[in-house]
Amino acid sequence: MTEETIKRIRKFTADRDWDQFHTPANLAKSISIEAGELLECFQWSDTEFDEEHVKEELADVIVYCRNLLDELGLDEDEIVNSKMDKNEAKYPVEKAKGNSKKYNQL
Amino acid sequence: MTEETIKRIRKFTADRDWDQFHTPANLAKSISIEAGELLECFQWSDTEFDEEHVKEELADVIVYCRNLLDELGLDEDEIVNSKMDKNEAKYPVEKAKGNSKKYNQL
Amino acid sequence: MTEETIKRIRKFTADRDWDQFHTPANLAKSISIEAGELLECFQWSDTEFDEEHVKEELADVIVYCRNLLDELGLDEDEIVNSKMDKNEAKYPVEKAKGNSKKYNQL
Amino acid sequence: MTEETIKRIRKFTADRDWDQFHTPANLAKSISIEAGELLECFQWSDTEFDEEHVKEELADVIVYCRNLLDELGLDEDEIVNSKMDKNEAKYPVEKAKGNSKKYNQL
Repeated sequence: MTEETIKRIRKFTADRDWDQFHTPANLAKSISIEAGELLECFQWSDTEFDEEHVKEELADVIVYCRNLLDELGLDEDEIVNSKMDKNEAKYPVEKAKGNSKKYNQL
Repeated sequence: MTEETIKRIRKFTADRDWDQFHTPANLAKSISIEAGELLECFQWSDTEFDEEHVKEELADVIVYCRNLLDELGLDEDEIVNSKMDKNEAKYPVEKAKGNSKKYNQL
Repeated sequence: MTEETIKRIRKFTADRDWDQFHTPANLAKSISIEAGELLECFQWSDTEFDEEHVKEELADVIVYCRNLLDELGLDEDEIVNSKMDKNEAKYPVEKAKGNSKKYNQL
Repeated sequence: MTEETIKRIRKFTADRDWDQFHTPANLAKSISIEAGELLECFQWSDTEFDEEHVKEELADVIVYCRNLLDELGLDEDEIVNSKMDKNEAKYPVEKAKGNSKKYNQL
């Protein structure tokens, strides 16, 4: 995401004085709620879905993720790379290739 | 997220031949599942939480969001800005300021 | 669910002094968390799943639903029948038959 | 839940020819989606919530749990008691009393 988009998200919250509601717990709830709305696009079919609706709900999840990063003062690249270090260790290519099993069942 | 991190995520999937599992529906499920794990950090307390654990689970949500963006060929800034247009219209500052009500109850 | 099973669930909570954690909000979070674990059984395939695992996760959702009913002093049959009244009105048979569309798109 | 309410839920589905949509995976998604809507009642406050709305969303979760029990031919008391056996073993009273920690951290 560009710095400009990030600033727009922050300004949206600040202008509405909504930082008071953006506790980590409330944002975690919000991410789950929006993830549920995204999932609803695929409730009865995995293949027929309204892409415009998917875009909106995915954007909502992403915006709340950005809010939580901001609230906790986290750097997105840092936490993602740190998690990728773990994922790469948990799922070695030779074991995981073409296999959707969970790491503890590989 | 930097282009380098995005490439790392894509390479992780490609190396494991996991694109076959990354249907939009499966990724929407995955976002919900990881959002639930993030929420678990706040299950019994809104204020006492393990920040290291929060970072990992948030990173998981973000990585699956990136996978879904890639799968559908979406531009993150574009969908977020398009949603922010709508949010700004739904929540006018003068009505929404300091108020956590949903737009249809403002 | 039989009265005996309901009593067992209540005793489990009371014996551990866990009523203090069972606020409506925490139980709503818990239902979402367990629903995510249930969904995980179907993360990468809709048709191949571990039924024993499904049973456990579904039971967890049901137990937390029972906890929330208890916490709010609700009668399960009453709230379900009241919701079925609404569902029947929102989805008239002649419109909804064989159709998975949401009521506002019927 | 009384047998009468269970029959009403089954008739609702059968009348609309909706069994075709009630695969285990779709029902697991539905439980997650409705759990998210229940959680939305507590999005910005743990203590101020609309109880009528909570009742409706909790009922939705319960109805989809019933649908999934039916779809898989499961007995609610059986799976709940089987899970309670495990919970009682994982959370011995002397360790878990007054403690909200997860079993693997007790």
